[in-house]
Amino acid sequence: MEQFIDRLERSIVRRGTPVVVGIDPHLPLFPESILPPGLAATDSGVRDLQKVAAVLWTFCRGVLDVVSGLVPAVKFQLAFFEQIGPPGLLVLSDLVRQAHDAGLLVILDGKRGDIGSTALAYAEGMLGAGESSPWGGDALTVNPYLGDDSLEPFVQTANQRRAGMFVLVKTSNPGGRRFQDLVAEGKPIYRHVAAMVEQLAAKQIGRCGYGDVGGVVGATYREQLAELREAMPHTWLLVPGYGSQGATAVDVAPAFDPRGRGAIINNSRAIIFAFRRKEYERFGSRRWQEAIEAATRDMIAELRAETPAGNIRQE
Amino acid sequence: MEQFIDRLERSIVRRGTPVVVGIDPHLPLFPESILPPGLAATDSGVRDLQKVAAVLWTFCRGVLDVVSGLVPAVKFQLAFFEQIGPPGLLVLSDLVRQAHDAGLLVILDGKRGDIGSTALAYAEGMLGAGESSPWGGDALTVNPYLGDDSLEPFVQTANQRRAGMFVLVKTSNPGGRRFQDLVAEGKPIYRHVAAMVEQLAAKQIGRCGYGDVGGVVGATYREQLAELREAMPHTWLLVPGYGSQGATAVDVAPAFDPRGRGAIINNSRAIIFAFRRKEYERFGSRRWQEAIEAATRDMIAELRAETPAGNIRQE
Repeated sequence: MEQFIDRLERSIVRRGTPVVVGIDPHLPLFPESILPPGLAATDSGVRDLQKVAAVLWTFCRGVLDVVSGLVPAVKFQLAFFEQIGPPGLLVLSDLVRQAHDAGLLVILDGKRGDIGSTALAYAEGMLGAGESSPWGGDALTVNPYLGDDSLEPFVQTANQRRAGMFVLVKTSNPGGRRFQDLVAEGKPIYRHVAAMVEQLAAKQIGRCGYGDVGGVVGATYREQLAELREAMPHTWLLVPGYGSQGATAVDVAPAFDPRGRGAIINNSRAIIFAFRRKEYERFGSRRWQEAIEAATRDMIAELRAETPAGNIRQE
Repeated sequence: MEQFIDRLERSIVRRGTPVVVGIDPHLPLFPESILPPGLAATDSGVRDLQKVAAVLWTFCRGVLDVVSGLVPAVKFQLAFFEQIGPPGLLVLSDLVRQAHDAGLLVILDGKRGDIGSTALAYAEGMLGAGESSPWGGDALTVNPYLGDDSLEPFVQTANQRRAGMFVLVKTSNPGGRRFQDLVAEGKPIYRHVAAMVEQLAAKQIGRCGYGDVGGVVGATYREQLAELREAMPHTWLLVPGYGSQGATAVDVAPAFDPRGRGAIINNSRAIIFAFRRKEYERFGSRRWQEAIEAATRDMIAELRAETPAGNIRQE
C-alpha cells in the first residue's frame, strides 16, 4: 500500500477536488423527516441510546451515499459518536467500513494526545485502514500540548500502517488565540508547534512532495494560513472553518501550493445540514440529501474558481 | 447530589487517603495466569477483539475488587479500552457501573478537547454519574490547547451534572517541557494555563474550599508542584507520575495543603502490575491481586508518613 499522503493526493486528483466532508452528526440539527416520533427531545442523557444510534446510522449513511462520488475523504468527528455511548461507537465502526468500501479515505477527528504506551494505544486503536486496526482510520487528528515525545508513538504507528496524522497547530475558534498566540522566544506558540510538525513531516516525504504528518490550521485566520503554508513546506494542511465558521474560498486560497496541492478543506455543518441554509432551503427537510449534493458541488466549484485547487486536473 | 469536589473530599476522608488507582490495562503486562492460550501475541491488530475484551474485563474487574475498599477513586485510561474497538468500550461502560456500585468515584482519563458543540458532545457523553450520561464519569481530564472557549462546554456540563474536570497544566513526561515551559509575557505557558484553570476553579467553590475544575500536574517536577500549589489555591490537583515514572511520596508532598487536602495522587502501573515489581515478586503472576493490595497499602502508608496526607483522619 502507498503511504498515506500519496493515497490522499491520488484521491484528490481522482475527484478533482480537495474538499473533505466533515461528519459532525449533531442531533438537534438532523432533518425531522428521519427522526422517529418523540426522539427530538432525547439529545442528551442515556435514554433511548439504541434508537438514537439507529438514527445516527441512517443519517451518516445517507451522507456517505451522496458524497462518496464527489470528494476524496470524509472526517468523522468522534465526539458525536462517543456521545451516544457504546451503540454510537458501533455505528462509527460500521460507517468507517462503509466509507472505505465507497472509496473514501477516512480521517478520524479525535484530537487525541497522551504519553508513552497510552499514546501508542490510541495510535494502534485508531490508525490503519482495513483490518490493521479496530477503528480503521487512514489518519487521526492529534493534540500537541504534551510535547514531542507524546507524538512519537503516533508517528511510529502511522509509518508502520501507512497511515497519517494531522497535528493541531492553529485552531479556528476565537479562544484558540489564548495560548496558541502567546509569543515565546520571538514567535507565537503555534509557530513552535508548526516547526516541530514540519520537522516530522520532512522525515518521510512521499512522491507528492509532502509528508505523512500534516497540520491542522483554521481557515478563519487568513494571514496565518499564508504564513504557515510558507513555514511548513512539507506539511499537508487540514483546514477547518469553511462555511459555518465563516471562512470562504478566498480565505483558504493561501493554504495551497501553486499546483493546488498541500491542503484539504473541511466543511462539516454547512454541507451535511445544508437543507437548513437559506441557499438550499428549497430542498426542505425531506430532500436533505439533495441539499448535501448541491452544497458539496457548490463548494467544489468555489474552490476551483477562487483557489489554486482549480489547477488540480481530474484524472 | 453534592458538587463533585465535595464528594471527592468526602471519599478521601472516608478512606483516609488521597490515592487514586489508575487503570491502564496495557495487555503485554497482564498476568499470564489470566490469559487464554495464544492470546499474548494478539496485542495489536483486530484479531480476537472479543477475546481480548473478555480478558480486559476479568483483569479490571479484579483490580476493582481489590482497591474499592482502600481508595476513594479510580482513573480509567480510555486509550486502552478504545484500542480494543467497540468490545473494549462495552467493557469500559460496564466497569464504570461496577466501580460506582463499589462506592468508587470515577475519573475518565481521555484528555479530550475540542470546540463548540463538539466539546459539548464530549462533555455530555462523558460527564455525569449514574444515568445522567452514557459513560458516567464523575470527572474527565481535558486538554487546554484549544483555549478558554473550548473549556466552557465542559465547565457548563460539569456544573449541571455535579461532575468535575481536570485540565492538563504541566504533564509528567520529559517532552512536556517542549511547549509547556516556553516563556511568554514573563512566565511559562503552563503558568498561563494554570491562571486560567484557577480562575475557573474559583468560580464554583465547594464546602471544602476547592472548585470543581481541577488541574493535572505531574509528580516528576517537584519544584513546579510547589509553585503551582501556591499559584492555584482553589484548584484540586490530580498528580500522575508516582511509581513507574519515578516520583516518590517526598516528591508529591508539595501538592497538598497543610490539612492534606488539594491533591489526589495517581498510581497506575506500579499498583495494577505490582506483581512484576521486585518488591512484590513474592506473589508471582497467580497472586497478582494480592500484589495489588500490598502495593496500594504501601503507597497509602508512604503518603501518610511523608506528606500532609497524614493529616487526613479517617471517618
